[in-house]
Amino acid sequence: MIKTAILGYGTVGSGVFEVIRKNKDVIRNKFAEGLEVKYVLDLRDFEDDPVSEVLVHDIDIIINDPEVAIVCETMGGVKPAYDFTRRALESGKSVCTSNKELVEKHGPELLQIAKAHNCSYLFEASVGGGIPIIRPLRTSLAQEEILSITGILNGTTNYILTKMETEGLAFDDVLKRAQEKGYAEKNPDADVLGYDACRKIAILTSLAYGRNVSYSDITTEGITNIKDIDFAYAKKLGATIKLFAKSVKKNDKYYAIVAPFIVSPENPLFSVNGVFNAILVNGNMGGETMYYGKGAGKLATASAVVSDVLDCARHIGKHLEVRWDADKLEISPIDGAVRRFFVRVSDTDETRIRSVFGDIDMVTGVADGECGFVTPEMTEKEYREKAGQYGNVIGMIRMD
Amino acid sequence: MIKTAILGYGTVGSGVFEVIRKNKDVIRNKFAEGLEVKYVLDLRDFEDDPVSEVLVHDIDIIINDPEVAIVCETMGGVKPAYDFTRRALESGKSVCTSNKELVEKHGPELLQIAKAHNCSYLFEASVGGGIPIIRPLRTSLAQEEILSITGILNGTTNYILTKMETEGLAFDDVLKRAQEKGYAEKNPDADVLGYDACRKIAILTSLAYGRNVSYSDITTEGITNIKDIDFAYAKKLGATIKLFAKSVKKNDKYYAIVAPFIVSPENPLFSVNGVFNAILVNGNMGGETMYYGKGAGKLATASAVVSDVLDCARHIGKHLEVRWDADKLEISPIDGAVRRFFVRVSDTDETRIRSVFGDIDMVTGVADGECGFVTPEMTEKEYREKAGQYGNVIGMIRMD
Repeated sequence: MIKTAILGYGTVGSGVFEVIRKNKDVIRNKFAEGLEVKYVLDLRDFEDDPVSEVLVHDIDIIINDPEVAIVCETMGGVKPAYDFTRRALESGKSVCTSNKELVEKHGPELLQIAKAHNCSYLFEASVGGGIPIIRPLRTSLAQEEILSITGILNGTTNYILTKMETEGLAFDDVLKRAQEKGYAEKNPDADVLGYDACRKIAILTSLAYGRNVSYSDITTEGITNIKDIDFAYAKKLGATIKLFAKSVKKNDKYYAIVAPFIVSPENPLFSVNGVFNAILVNGNMGGETMYYGKGAGKLATASAVVSDVLDCARHIGKHLEVRWDADKLEISPIDGAVRRFFVRVSDTDETRIRSVFGDIDMVTGVADGECGFVTPEMTEKEYREKAGQYGNVIGMIRMD
Repeated sequence: MIKTAILGYGTVGSGVFEVIRKNKDVIRNKFAEGLEVKYVLDLRDFEDDPVSEVLVHDIDIIINDPEVAIVCETMGGVKPAYDFTRRALESGKSVCTSNKELVEKHGPELLQIAKAHNCSYLFEASVGGGIPIIRPLRTSLAQEEILSITGILNGTTNYILTKMETEGLAFDDVLKRAQEKGYAEKNPDADVLGYDACRKIAILTSLAYGRNVSYSDITTEGITNIKDIDFAYAKKLGATIKLFAKSVKKNDKYYAIVAPFIVSPENPLFSVNGVFNAILVNGNMGGETMYYGKGAGKLATASAVVSDVLDCARHIGKHLEVRWDADKLEISPIDGAVRRFFVRVSDTDETRIRSVFGDIDMVTGVADGECGFVTPEMTEKEYREKAGQYGNVIGMIRMD
């Protein structure tokens, strides 16, 4: 029987406890040795909860128990999760985590420590909740040169955009409803400004190329500037609007961006709605594969943590290699990225628009005194210059 | 350097050779030891092809070379693939294959032999081509009780159905075009009658529950009875028609079927079009996850074989456990499966329809002298009895 300890009995931690207990027989069917939770660490007490039998308040009990082979770090935050993770790895215990912040900040270092101590540091649950994406990137796609990764990586913003589209509501109204339903935080900035998705695409891009991407190098725009009228334009284009977290390798350069994109039905991400997440990966041999599921939620996230625990349990005493060096992966300035742009202007002077933007596709009849159009392909820099030259721009959304 | 041999230089085999050569550096970046093709076995000669340097005509050269750690069996068929696979495994060489027929027929036995000789038998490419699904089932979803698997597992039929829908063409016309384009075989029976999808869902279901599902236990209907008018009805329902290969665990019983289903846009499989495949898995903890990509094609399939090769390369001398016992998994008679049915009848007598089928939803206005309706939930057996009692039934498609 492989013994594990859970650090933190919050949403994810209690989910991990539940998955391992409820699916005991299922797990034993796939992993004959079986899996058991020996300790749960939390500062609080939980009377009348089955966890009370294994609850401890002192990390040292876990670190000093040689029977504990695997630790689930489900505390979140950097402090004290970082210290606890280090100590566990240094004593040869593998660590599985859902802690995106810690992974983004200290991933390469913690992987090094794991390697040095013949144990593993796995973090499937840190991106895409219950969607298998990190393991497929590491194993199923290891032979692929990754040409691009495009993710809908934040459930809150996808829920808001879906509601804006299907119910014709304004951003603020949907956000308020999402907050009431618990789909959005009281302080929604990390979600709606794109920071959460940015951290996740930084992790995925680091794993795709084996080098470290700093999230601060990634151009990040949220969805707060998306208006209900944008969906009317998108509909005229037969398209929708999604917050994409995207990285691309092109001519040996790497680009990354988090921003709203206009997405056509040909893209399999088009129909990913509500709180669901999905990641579309384009490899140079196998082409496009997509991974879809619940990007958050107690049991989905916990299930992903347990999948990592089982992977470690099958490889006791062995380091599961995750290539993610501390060397920086240079992200090229977004200025050089080439694409089409959907632009809204506060006039309808097609002749002048064409004289500045070239051979555009007009979108009219949505509102009086304005129009929209789709530019030909150009760099982000060219677009910005043309937009400055034209003036009158009241909105821009990138085209996928 | 890990050395591999490829058995069969056909479509997939030459693809494997290409992936390993072209992505040599990518592979080395993820697997530092590197991977090399030492032999390719084929009866033919290939002058002026880089393969000629490593081409052999005698399997014994490969079996007797202790340097060869991994064999890719890309011959297809049972003979001589079965013998070659056995011999390779018995000499401790792991085998990775795209050979669905062999896997379906001898999977449990070959896995046992692999286990006994501390090597592995992997077959990611045998289902869903380039889509990672077998490894996720074995690893990422190992902690899940699988409640259902629903796959679009055959690209030919999905291409035909997509074309029938988007271009309003009849089955025969699309099939002819698909044959001209090479998307359908000259003898298309294995695809259009559902046999190919049936073998694949048998493999996936066996892996989900660790016991052997015989494809002959699976009720299998193809798409040859789907008429262009069915798409007109589906459209009225806001839905489409897909060939599903499906298995369900319900009340400790297992059901499996391959048949056309009417699929609504809420199902993520709704928008899987053309030659693409996808598999939707419902787990009791993490809920729904979906895996999407190219279900066939030289490089996609080859890429999946190489992902297995890398997995074996990382686990030399170790058996990668794939739970698939020879014990039979009892598939319950489809009679007991409960669902709604879309029915076309050659009259429009709503009163009589209701008197037989109960509280149905009518679909009218598609063609003169007939109508369609959707039944309430009932078992397959109840449906058949009612259909017999009513008479006049000119078509039925199950509702997802």
